[in-house]
Amino acid sequence: MKQENTPSTLIMIFGATGDLAKRKLFPSLYQLYLKGKMSNNFALLGVGRREWSHDRFKDHVRDSLQASSHSKEHIESFIEHCAYQSHDVSDSDSYIQLKNLANELDQQFELCGNRIFYLAMAPEFFGTITDHLKQDGLTDTKGFCRLVIEKPFGHDLASASALNEQIRKSFSEEQIYRIDHYLGKEMVQNIEVIRFANAIFEPQWNSRFISNIQITSSETLGVEERGRYYETSGALRDMVQNHMLQMVALLAMEPPIRLSTDEIRSEKVRVFRAMRPIEGTEVDDYFVRGQYAEGTVNGTDVDSYRNGENVDPTSNTETFVAGKVMIDNFRWAGVPFFIRTGKRMTVKSTKIVVQFKDIPMNLYYNKEHSLDPNLLVIHIQPDEGVTLHLNAKKTSQGIDTKPVKLSYSASSIDGINTPEAYEKLLYDCILGDATNFTHWDEVKHSWSFVDKISTHWESTTEESFPNYASGSMGPAKSDELLAQEGFEWWPIGELDVKKTIE
Amino acid sequence: MKQENTPSTLIMIFGATGDLAKRKLFPSLYQLYLKGKMSNNFALLGVGRREWSHDRFKDHVRDSLQASSHSKEHIESFIEHCAYQSHDVSDSDSYIQLKNLANELDQQFELCGNRIFYLAMAPEFFGTITDHLKQDGLTDTKGFCRLVIEKPFGHDLASASALNEQIRKSFSEEQIYRIDHYLGKEMVQNIEVIRFANAIFEPQWNSRFISNIQITSSETLGVEERGRYYETSGALRDMVQNHMLQMVALLAMEPPIRLSTDEIRSEKVRVFRAMRPIEGTEVDDYFVRGQYAEGTVNGTDVDSYRNGENVDPTSNTETFVAGKVMIDNFRWAGVPFFIRTGKRMTVKSTKIVVQFKDIPMNLYYNKEHSLDPNLLVIHIQPDEGVTLHLNAKKTSQGIDTKPVKLSYSASSIDGINTPEAYEKLLYDCILGDATNFTHWDEVKHSWSFVDKISTHWESTTEESFPNYASGSMGPAKSDELLAQEGFEWWPIGELDVKKTIE
Repeated sequence: MKQENTPSTLIMIFGATGDLAKRKLFPSLYQLYLKGKMSNNFALLGVGRREWSHDRFKDHVRDSLQASSHSKEHIESFIEHCAYQSHDVSDSDSYIQLKNLANELDQQFELCGNRIFYLAMAPEFFGTITDHLKQDGLTDTKGFCRLVIEKPFGHDLASASALNEQIRKSFSEEQIYRIDHYLGKEMVQNIEVIRFANAIFEPQWNSRFISNIQITSSETLGVEERGRYYETSGALRDMVQNHMLQMVALLAMEPPIRLSTDEIRSEKVRVFRAMRPIEGTEVDDYFVRGQYAEGTVNGTDVDSYRNGENVDPTSNTETFVAGKVMIDNFRWAGVPFFIRTGKRMTVKSTKIVVQFKDIPMNLYYNKEHSLDPNLLVIHIQPDEGVTLHLNAKKTSQGIDTKPVKLSYSASSIDGINTPEAYEKLLYDCILGDATNFTHWDEVKHSWSFVDKISTHWESTTEESFPNYASGSMGPAKSDELLAQEGFEWWPIGELDVKKTIE
Repeated sequence: MKQENTPSTLIMIFGATGDLAKRKLFPSLYQLYLKGKMSNNFALLGVGRREWSHDRFKDHVRDSLQASSHSKEHIESFIEHCAYQSHDVSDSDSYIQLKNLANELDQQFELCGNRIFYLAMAPEFFGTITDHLKQDGLTDTKGFCRLVIEKPFGHDLASASALNEQIRKSFSEEQIYRIDHYLGKEMVQNIEVIRFANAIFEPQWNSRFISNIQITSSETLGVEERGRYYETSGALRDMVQNHMLQMVALLAMEPPIRLSTDEIRSEKVRVFRAMRPIEGTEVDDYFVRGQYAEGTVNGTDVDSYRNGENVDPTSNTETFVAGKVMIDNFRWAGVPFFIRTGKRMTVKSTKIVVQFKDIPMNLYYNKEHSLDPNLLVIHIQPDEGVTLHLNAKKTSQGIDTKPVKLSYSASSIDGINTPEAYEKLLYDCILGDATNFTHWDEVKHSWSFVDKISTHWESTTEESFPNYASGSMGPAKSDELLAQEGFEWWPIGELDVKKTIE
């Protein structure tokens, strides 16, 4: 296989018997391997509590690849790079064993001491593991050491700061890769390109031309078997603090001086710093919380959140958040960024709608309704692409206009599926490119923003809960949030990029 | 059939036994009838030199409809409105007969004296006919009288002025509908809507954001059996003076105060007045002429223009024109409008490409070539739609960009063919809307612009003729015209809107 000149590395996955490793990490690494994007000098060292043999682990990896991949020819050569170590996270002896195996693999595969430690497990162990990695000498190599951490990174600013301080004892900020898998998504990465590589958008990307921006990330599933975790989290921490605010930052940032990791992160931090902080009863003017009742999703009757497994029958946890984020800087003064995310909604979809201001004077008469505004829709998932909504003449006599959509569908046009977010992020990490991972400064500022909201919500019980039916687009207050500014949520289901080109 | 409240009218077609009437006028009127856009109070009076009976003419109309239409159920009821009068254009007695028949039809169909005189015949008779229509009392009715004139309207400014003066003795400017059938095309009518109904284009529609505009109208056919006419015309008079300059005017005009006929025409005239006049040897810096040699078009070997029927074997007539039109006003200073039209070219296509200026700073590195500029492509024919060319991220790792196209195809999305230009124009005329017809002031200014070029060309023999192969995109000098400004013609064949959405 033709291989790119990618650094050799040992990839050590903590939580290797878990769900994330099986569904995402092994298949992503294998895809990189298949595409020649991994050096042949690599090893995948699975680490887990279970007492598995190497062969048992290899079977496990093989299973995960066969489920996800069509091309099986190279699976066995990939499997040869895999090894397993059963492990107790709080026992130094266990780390010494791990170190010895790592050193063996290093020699066997000529890995130059390069190591990536991927923590795909419960966050309560993050600190313990990083302490031991350093104390027990696993980070003491001639090559690079990088730490990849899954979310959640803390529960609030205080816990995130404590976690960060503990990790930073063993790893420098430059060595830490905090995963926000939204940043690995093709069309999220495209936000920057759409903005800065196209002359027709950049001059209009500000408050003089944009009236509001709407970001929706809706799911149809409920909390399912994750009730225990979700009761302590809620949609605000689970989705807003990371994914939603990251998208706001990418949409709002100033053009970076250059496309380097530091410059881009620095511009994103400036957006977080410009976000108007909301606290106390003011929160009710800017944010709306929801919790799903029973209802019907895609034709199936489903139960309420409070009737779910491991959920308090009087739970005050939100499964839906809508909010208005204001960015008080020169570019965005007065332009609301409306965000909305929730479970058990009508459709599963992540989309950004940039709504442009109306033309200065409407020459066109339309009997049915006023002229539609121009919209730029960025389709993140499941459909990927860009749509521009324009007004055109009706194909008939007269001067009535009708809205038309100019569409580009990434997946349907190229005829291939875009790579998984995890595949891109793992590749970035192997190359040492931290651009699409979150810097501590971003995490800190976003927790600071979100904490004020959760503090208010936790101090008050939302009497209306449950306040939206499963299968709906959230509580009525979410619509009112926009209506009071004269806007409305653009109907996500009707914007699907594929619908427009079929 | 449900009928709109459209004025009753007699439509008198001179040249009713000719090609245009059969191919375009009868089918268009029938389509209007079918769609309920004609009052039931209408009559179609065919006028021609041939000694036909009413029944012979009705057969002729029936033939033309059956060739073009799928729905035959209403043909007979349409035919009942048809009548025929054989006619000598220079004989007053003949006009008296015509008047008597017209008055009979007026009574029979309750036409309120409304009359449209459609001159679908050789231009040398235009003046004679209009003189007689007035002298012999055909315009002396209680209703409206409108005159529709096919191109060419004169051969140069002097002959056009003389013709206009003669016509104006019988009809006022408001009564004259000068056909430019490009103005009836769906996507030509859309130019105005794209510009003035979309907030994202209007602010950028000027020299600060647009680098150049390219208008191509190419044909694959040669002059065929029209050699005699074409020898006295050439591409400049046949295409540039009317269709090409009309498209320039629609693209360049200032927003009208309102969408009234007078306001729109007045803004178009202001564009003509701002066009930089080119004369003498200066013409060679701005305009390029071509004449086709033998070659291959769509796989078929074809002969040169000079070997065509009724063509001088040493003919100096151009079958191709490329030109740079400068509009010296505040909005367009320094922005070239490149126009190009010709016969026997590679593809049959009419397209407008608006090329935006580059972004102020290119953050993106592309190993293969520099970043592509943004393009807005308006597809006039045969495909109809709008395409916006943007840069997006390659669907893979890294920061390389690739061009993508956002597309809207009018015909393919709506699933119906857009109405024929003639259908729209005839309907406009019945309603009394002259917006999509050319005012004398437009004709006058465009002849004035074109005359200076033809004067120079007629005074010098183009020694290089024939200078482009049939099946090519014109002579090399056409490319040089753009190259000297650092531009190139965007390849028309590759821009097809349907290609991008299949």
